[in-house]
Amino acid sequence: MERNIFQPSVNLLKGNVWLDALFGLEKENIRVDKNGKLAQTLHPKVFGNKLKHPYITTDFSESQIEMITPPLPDIKEAIGFLETIHDIVSLELTDEYLWPQSIPPILPDEKEIPIAQYEEDGIKDQEYREFLAQKYGSKNQLFSGIHFNLSFSDKLLEILYRKLNTALSFEEFKDEVYLKTTRQIMRMRWLYILLYGNSPVVDSSLELHCKLAPYKIDKNVIALSIRNSCYGYQNIVELFPDYSSVKNYQESIKQMVKEGKLKASKELYSPVRPKFIQSPDHISYIELRFIDIDPLTKAGITEEALSFLHALALYGLLSDETDQFETKDQALANKYHGGVALYGLNTAPCFFEDDAKRINIWAKAKTIIQEITALFKKLEINKEPYLNSLKEVADLVENPKHRKIYKLLEGILEKGYIPFHLDRADQYLKMSQQKNYNFIGLEDTELSTQLLLREAVRRGVYIEILDRKENFVRLNKNENVQYVKQATKTSLDNYASILAMENKLVTKKVLDEHGIRVPKGSDYSSADIAKADFVLFQGKPVVIKPNQTNFGIGITIIKENNDEATYCRAIDIAFANDSTILIEEFIEGKEFRIFVINNEVVGILHRVPANVTGDGTSSIRELVGIKNQDPLRGKGYHTPLEKIQLGEAEAMFLQAQNKDFDYIPASSETVYLRENSNISTGGDSIDFTDDIPDSYKRIAVEAAKALNVKITGLDMIIPDHTKEASDDNYAIIELNFNPAIHIHCHPFKGKNRKLNEKLMDALGYH
Amino acid sequence: MERNIFQPSVNLLKGNVWLDALFGLEKENIRVDKNGKLAQTLHPKVFGNKLKHPYITTDFSESQIEMITPPLPDIKEAIGFLETIHDIVSLELTDEYLWPQSIPPILPDEKEIPIAQYEEDGIKDQEYREFLAQKYGSKNQLFSGIHFNLSFSDKLLEILYRKLNTALSFEEFKDEVYLKTTRQIMRMRWLYILLYGNSPVVDSSLELHCKLAPYKIDKNVIALSIRNSCYGYQNIVELFPDYSSVKNYQESIKQMVKEGKLKASKELYSPVRPKFIQSPDHISYIELRFIDIDPLTKAGITEEALSFLHALALYGLLSDETDQFETKDQALANKYHGGVALYGLNTAPCFFEDDAKRINIWAKAKTIIQEITALFKKLEINKEPYLNSLKEVADLVENPKHRKIYKLLEGILEKGYIPFHLDRADQYLKMSQQKNYNFIGLEDTELSTQLLLREAVRRGVYIEILDRKENFVRLNKNENVQYVKQATKTSLDNYASILAMENKLVTKKVLDEHGIRVPKGSDYSSADIAKADFVLFQGKPVVIKPNQTNFGIGITIIKENNDEATYCRAIDIAFANDSTILIEEFIEGKEFRIFVINNEVVGILHRVPANVTGDGTSSIRELVGIKNQDPLRGKGYHTPLEKIQLGEAEAMFLQAQNKDFDYIPASSETVYLRENSNISTGGDSIDFTDDIPDSYKRIAVEAAKALNVKITGLDMIIPDHTKEASDDNYAIIELNFNPAIHIHCHPFKGKNRKLNEKLMDALGYH
Repeated sequence: MERNIFQPSVNLLKGNVWLDALFGLEKENIRVDKNGKLAQTLHPKVFGNKLKHPYITTDFSESQIEMITPPLPDIKEAIGFLETIHDIVSLELTDEYLWPQSIPPILPDEKEIPIAQYEEDGIKDQEYREFLAQKYGSKNQLFSGIHFNLSFSDKLLEILYRKLNTALSFEEFKDEVYLKTTRQIMRMRWLYILLYGNSPVVDSSLELHCKLAPYKIDKNVIALSIRNSCYGYQNIVELFPDYSSVKNYQESIKQMVKEGKLKASKELYSPVRPKFIQSPDHISYIELRFIDIDPLTKAGITEEALSFLHALALYGLLSDETDQFETKDQALANKYHGGVALYGLNTAPCFFEDDAKRINIWAKAKTIIQEITALFKKLEINKEPYLNSLKEVADLVENPKHRKIYKLLEGILEKGYIPFHLDRADQYLKMSQQKNYNFIGLEDTELSTQLLLREAVRRGVYIEILDRKENFVRLNKNENVQYVKQATKTSLDNYASILAMENKLVTKKVLDEHGIRVPKGSDYSSADIAKADFVLFQGKPVVIKPNQTNFGIGITIIKENNDEATYCRAIDIAFANDSTILIEEFIEGKEFRIFVINNEVVGILHRVPANVTGDGTSSIRELVGIKNQDPLRGKGYHTPLEKIQLGEAEAMFLQAQNKDFDYIPASSETVYLRENSNISTGGDSIDFTDDIPDSYKRIAVEAAKALNVKITGLDMIIPDHTKEASDDNYAIIELNFNPAIHIHCHPFKGKNRKLNEKLMDALGYH
Repeated sequence: MERNIFQPSVNLLKGNVWLDALFGLEKENIRVDKNGKLAQTLHPKVFGNKLKHPYITTDFSESQIEMITPPLPDIKEAIGFLETIHDIVSLELTDEYLWPQSIPPILPDEKEIPIAQYEEDGIKDQEYREFLAQKYGSKNQLFSGIHFNLSFSDKLLEILYRKLNTALSFEEFKDEVYLKTTRQIMRMRWLYILLYGNSPVVDSSLELHCKLAPYKIDKNVIALSIRNSCYGYQNIVELFPDYSSVKNYQESIKQMVKEGKLKASKELYSPVRPKFIQSPDHISYIELRFIDIDPLTKAGITEEALSFLHALALYGLLSDETDQFETKDQALANKYHGGVALYGLNTAPCFFEDDAKRINIWAKAKTIIQEITALFKKLEINKEPYLNSLKEVADLVENPKHRKIYKLLEGILEKGYIPFHLDRADQYLKMSQQKNYNFIGLEDTELSTQLLLREAVRRGVYIEILDRKENFVRLNKNENVQYVKQATKTSLDNYASILAMENKLVTKKVLDEHGIRVPKGSDYSSADIAKADFVLFQGKPVVIKPNQTNFGIGITIIKENNDEATYCRAIDIAFANDSTILIEEFIEGKEFRIFVINNEVVGILHRVPANVTGDGTSSIRELVGIKNQDPLRGKGYHTPLEKIQLGEAEAMFLQAQNKDFDYIPASSETVYLRENSNISTGGDSIDFTDDIPDSYKRIAVEAAKALNVKITGLDMIIPDHTKEASDDNYAIIELNFNPAIHIHCHPFKGKNRKLNEKLMDALGYH
């Protein structure tokens, strides 16, 4: 393959299709106690077998948690997934933090660093770790970082392949693409470290040794990226694989193993690793391993940094290679890498030898960034995050002090290395605790789905988004494959039962046959007959409504049905909206949503219209402001509750009570701002699971059984829930076949009923 | 209860709510051979245990089939149900007819009349029949008729109950209503017999005896209703129960049994029987037993006749009673009944003694009918079939020769008693064979549902329409309760699989993962990216379409995709119709609908656009006319195929071929009138079940398994079905979760694949 075939001048392709790729992340975080000491506890049991959990495992040490995302089509989504795993792990720790820094926390003696423990199936893994501990020292194994797995999409590769019309097979072509990208990133990786290096200081418990230059340095050494420097975790001798072809690459590594330089190929700590996954002979993706954890962000990495890396990879692929990347070229690249890592904090002009030329790295950095920017313009790549990223790096090379490392150092200098990072870790833990309902990166999906997926990740169940808009996911663990839509539409229910729930006539008939009380009434297709039935409903409260209605149009509630004319008018109104109408008993009482899974009541909720309770001095406007500060309240259904609005509807509703937003309610006076109790209009959700007598719960379970339903949220009216259920002091309004779960997990008042856990149990994932 | 409380002057209630009632029918038909002789064969085995089949059993004789409908809210529907049972029974007979006459066919000797055979659980039933044979003679037991079970709806009764404000309990009130109605119909039943009596002649093999007046009459006796006369099947002595109260009624019958006049209460052959079903102490409905089979109609009864009976019942309920209905009053009513039955053919003034007054029955009949008509007007009852019925009876009393009996006699006189009825029976059998897909009375439901319900009735499965518009039914046999919507939405499938089928992205992904070929392609939400993919689709036929589309709007098929501009234009067109579009391989070949139930292919169908094939002399217009005569073709989806239209669409499509409706196709030239192959626009359905190699069937089954689907109709493109399936000579387009079954049962060409039977098997009904 010609080396320059990817020259941009070839004008291969335009547009954002160039960005079509998959991104995976792996992040290590050391568990520390509240004093910043390496935790001596076991990996949380809930995550089960380390070799089987797809997302959460340990690296070298039992205390070094490794979090792994699947390959995802968007960088932001990948970071979100990583952050969600981080959240999930954090919530399982007791009096511990995830240490937000590549450089280890306070370490005990070498011998007291716990090597990761494995079950029987992991004996080899454990042995390998023991070998590493001996060869490199356990402390050195605790440098932590982020790996970025990058693959161009098969589609992009296929387009390129077809356009280039090469004689190579598609697989060979892919190998060439990834090898060139590998070489190019190897050459230019110093640039990323220069901009995003983030491991400047060590604790005194870590003794630094430089394997290449075995001189000791000061304990308080300040470098740009100690982890990427010679003091970091590297092979003991410098190794130079052959990157000229897949075959040569594999042969050269085999040779190193043969010669005893490596125990296995995975011991080669190359900053960029081609990965052979789908096939042993062809590259599936490349792994970028020189990324420091960003202590200033919970996820440990920013979209800008990774977008820049992706842009750098594309730039490398599409630009000419400057050398053959033989041993001397690799050594030079390593020198850049190590040199920048050690001295890159320096903002003064900084020179390296490059084939006898002296190169100013800041000037070189600027040139590369300008060329990437020009390339993107030429290729008409204009995806926002990438443009933002290029803006950021352009600024960083212009203003090296804008680099995050300076903010980090400022904090460390102010508080000290350990306290600063502990403080950050504590902040992140609180954030994890507060937003414990979101699946970051999937916030556009329903909260119920996000909650279910969080629980799936926690339990080590593979998740896959099949149709994002539809909230359609696939779960998989131990050959138990489940398709789930909107969290509660599952294989547990049979289709006929769903249809029976969906059809109110059928639901009512079946419940009635089973002796379960439903509002009495009928459907009518003739006004004549409906009116003749006045006598049947006389003196009873009734609701008269069109069979199908939106927003309550055409519905009349008559509380004392004694005037035939009123009754007949209501019928005419309903018929004006549908050709079939329903006349039903109107049953007064509180409405409760009762959630049933597999014949067990797992949550009961009551919803209250948007309201505030006075303190005697604040206005309604102020009280709403205070209530809206609850982090559970947001806008657009991304939180379990919605903020109360001060809009027209609320103003009108207050006006009807002779109040306005400036009204000051008396102390403990509750003022309602809405008639309807929908959560979507600021209503409160109040957990009643432990407050409703079992007699009602039994009825709910009987109702679910009557329709042979496994998952349902049924709506029951209970006039007085302090009394036990009798034959006629309740009524079931309907059974919902797609009930939300988040309202039961994060109610305004009451406990988290963990319906996501209950659902995962029901689906057979333990 | 005051006797006159139901006087119309009370002005209780107005409107058609008066007609709210339930109607059930029972009909006996003798099985005969093709010569009109009583069949000596066994009751068809397919109907199983006679005591357990809810719809089809035998009466006295093994050859006397009894067909029973459930109570239904509409007379027409009840007759339709009865006719459907009749159809189903007819299709199970081999070289036999259902004898369409109340008077028996050619009978053998008494001893050779087979008494109904029972399994172990029916020993008592068999013994009772043997007792009857001895007491009354077997021949006499073969008079057949129709019983009409009438109950006023609980709603109507409740309204009346509330309006009347009586001191009685509701149950007591109902008893009074039914007792009064019983007495009144007993008094006026002669009027129905006068108008609708239909058993005028006997075969010589039946020797008539009159039990009241034991004189022999001529074999060719001509009477209006022999069955209702003293020559018919009656108790040996005249019996007079006490109709004054439920208690007295039950006591009086107990007394008769005690005195040995009756073996059991059911031996009392009263023309009107109050029935005690839900409770032993209260009347559930009344059974009217004096209805002759109408030989001139397949169902054996008309809507007009039954509507009149219902009207008569209402009239009776609402008019004053003329006497106490003591023994003498009952004897008089019996005299009217018997007299009319014997002499009612006479159209001259006909007098009976009534309390010393001489009554002209024709004048009396007119009066009653006028009063009913006036009553309906007063009560504002205006339901069409009832008004039609009143018109009919008004005409019959004005023109007694308009009675059907005259048409019947005409036929008998022309052809002879046996040949005339055999001829009718043969006509009805042919009708049953021809329209063997409809469930009469439920023609507004989908054909698939009608077919399923027919099969349910055949197998003795209780059926219940839960929501008619929705085609939602409930099946029940031996505690196996199944809810079924639209015939193929059942409990066999789990909800997640349904949702996976519904979502094309998911379907394709899963099939692809299982190595099953689907059209390659993707969905796009960016025109940019879609256009960039030109190279991926270059040179291949593609279809570019909006994600969701109706009527094919926005779809472009590009058969040779070599022009990028055309490709891009098609993308713009698709995006003009949806924010997401699909670009897929276009796979040429025939599309087959493959129906899979429980991992077995049960039917394969190919659909062809509306077409005619020339004979060299007829125009397209004429050929369409001929093709449309096929009884399978109808309008509005009530038949398995639709008539070909000669409309604008067809004219335009012909015009594009330079043809018009007057074009005369050459012999065996096929001309298409439509592009699309929908059955709804006159397309042909052609069965290929036996013509598609098993290799494709295996793939279809694998596809169903991949989605864990039990019932599906999948659409497969096969370019050449004469070749075995390979990896790339087919593609599955989609899996339908609600496939129609009727197209496989009644194709234009090919066998009935009996998917209704297959479905019932799958649902566990055998």
